[in-house]
Amino acid sequence: MVSTLNIPIRKTTNSRLHPFEKDKIVFGKEYADHMLVCDYKNGSWQTPQIVPFEDFSINPATSCLHYGQTIFEGVKAYRQPDGKIAVFRPIDNFRRMNISAQRMDMPELPEDIFMDGLRQLIALDEAWVPGGAETSLYIRPFMIAMDEFIGVRTAQTYRFAIINSPAGPYYAKPVRIFVQNKYVRSVKGGIGFTKAGGNYGASMLPTADVKAKGYDQILWTDGLEHKYVQEIGTMNVFFIVDGKALTPDLEDGIILAGITRKSIIQLLQDNNIPVEERKITIDELVEAHKAGKLQEAFGSGTAASMSFIADLTYQGETMKLPDVSGWKIANTIKKQLDDIRYGHSEDVHNWLFPVN
Amino acid sequence: MVSTLNIPIRKTTNSRLHPFEKDKIVFGKEYADHMLVCDYKNGSWQTPQIVPFEDFSINPATSCLHYGQTIFEGVKAYRQPDGKIAVFRPIDNFRRMNISAQRMDMPELPEDIFMDGLRQLIALDEAWVPGGAETSLYIRPFMIAMDEFIGVRTAQTYRFAIINSPAGPYYAKPVRIFVQNKYVRSVKGGIGFTKAGGNYGASMLPTADVKAKGYDQILWTDGLEHKYVQEIGTMNVFFIVDGKALTPDLEDGIILAGITRKSIIQLLQDNNIPVEERKITIDELVEAHKAGKLQEAFGSGTAASMSFIADLTYQGETMKLPDVSGWKIANTIKKQLDDIRYGHSEDVHNWLFPVN
Repeated sequence: MVSTLNIPIRKTTNSRLHPFEKDKIVFGKEYADHMLVCDYKNGSWQTPQIVPFEDFSINPATSCLHYGQTIFEGVKAYRQPDGKIAVFRPIDNFRRMNISAQRMDMPELPEDIFMDGLRQLIALDEAWVPGGAETSLYIRPFMIAMDEFIGVRTAQTYRFAIINSPAGPYYAKPVRIFVQNKYVRSVKGGIGFTKAGGNYGASMLPTADVKAKGYDQILWTDGLEHKYVQEIGTMNVFFIVDGKALTPDLEDGIILAGITRKSIIQLLQDNNIPVEERKITIDELVEAHKAGKLQEAFGSGTAASMSFIADLTYQGETMKLPDVSGWKIANTIKKQLDDIRYGHSEDVHNWLFPVN
Repeated sequence: MVSTLNIPIRKTTNSRLHPFEKDKIVFGKEYADHMLVCDYKNGSWQTPQIVPFEDFSINPATSCLHYGQTIFEGVKAYRQPDGKIAVFRPIDNFRRMNISAQRMDMPELPEDIFMDGLRQLIALDEAWVPGGAETSLYIRPFMIAMDEFIGVRTAQTYRFAIINSPAGPYYAKPVRIFVQNKYVRSVKGGIGFTKAGGNYGASMLPTADVKAKGYDQILWTDGLEHKYVQEIGTMNVFFIVDGKALTPDLEDGIILAGITRKSIIQLLQDNNIPVEERKITIDELVEAHKAGKLQEAFGSGTAASMSFIADLTYQGETMKLPDVSGWKIANTIKKQLDDIRYGHSEDVHNWLFPVN
């Protein structure tokens, strides 16, 4: 692959790189040596730069600190058997970032700044991608409004950046889920389908509330009747009911169009498991559970990949799922997904993007 | 008034202060010489500091840039006839900021940090409060999440700051309003009652859309049926119908509990004008307009004080209001509010907070 974009690089003179012990990697605690920064001003994106990871100097009146014009993405890079690095479906993150940008009235990014920028940055810091099972480099592209102006209006200047953090194994025991019917995450006409900061800030209190009650995450329901399920925490959600996979559809722009979600749907179809993308009521899940047909359930997202659900609590009743060790579908899909990511099976869908 | 809090002051050695020509003040273009900064860490608020207005140094992984845990307030200081400075109802901003903090899972501020901090900061920079009719110093308290961590969780460290910008006369011609029935600002269970960044970022595109069609602001309607009116742009809204003042109530936590709103309600009552705080349907306003009973309508907020409405467009029909020059109620209330703020009439409700 040949770069189409010439990105100036200012290398660090003070590398923080060190050997990784995969069980001691704490996600989000440290960041790779370099970052990509690209500013938008006078109506156009400037030349991106790769520079040492360092503080931004931000005027206290800068609009991203006041008015939530901020969006981000989450991507992962995996070390392959030959030692090279591949990123999982970054073109989809690029496209989704621009969908977020559009809804938040922020400028769309050109493909080369995102894709070439990401590739050259990860190639430079490839030693920051840990090796070994279940490790990865978490890649965080984000865009923030940079006007030094506290009037409420669409900003005219922005900064796009990519920072990276090594991620160790995600030892997830199955999660306990509380079905939320007080707080609302998103409704039609809102920003639920975007990765805008506002969606996440608004979820902190509801999540802390259920954690204090012994649950791990929220299953969000619709804001009108609290009848239809939406997402689990910051992940998409799947239910295996009587051998079929059910997941909320993307109509109405209420939930995130997850890239892991899309990949799982593809793998389910590859395995001839019927998939229904549609509105799913909580009552339907309660009925399925009563009938012994709620067989498996999991969240999907870049951070945890697939997060299995131990139980769901709705209106004081806890629905316990069968023990995960016996889950045929979720365990199969998780292994197939991991095998593709780590280069242990053929990348038949062309999901891997090589960086070096 | 004696300070209860000893706030260290580091004075600027490079004052940017200059004489103000009141017609040349551009809001948000410049900031007073000093700011208040107070950090929260290890579970408690540290000693606030008054320092020169200068850039924050922010790690690119800082959570406020990613997850929208940001809240703010808007307050104004007015130069009084004796030359001294008074701030309008800041204790109410303090209380509302803590209501926002609670919903956003951010730490509440102690009263002395907010109130003494604000008073000492404005006293120090009192020369930045312009004199003359319709001028003020706009005061912006805000709080941002400061964890250098990109996991999605409630932050453990925060920064509270106050910055100030001189504001000139707000030459507002009556605004043209588009009644929104596609995008949604907030629903019950959301964060509509807070001054969190996310509420504002999500409104940029809908507002830009209506501006492109020749309107000035949106009248938001409820997210369920688009039937009940909520707020206008970033202001509360009042309708004078047949001599009565109608304004949406604060039930359900959908709209901001405006301090200008509350002050206007008090003044309306002082003038024996009936006030109804309740759900208001757009159909009811259409009917009132048809019957010639929709006499006046205006937005209320700290920035514009009262912003009169020229017309409302709903489902393709434009309802024109009578010429504002003949508006008895809004013009009376606006004058009474200004007279109190600028010290031209007695502050019977104790709304002014002297700083020097």
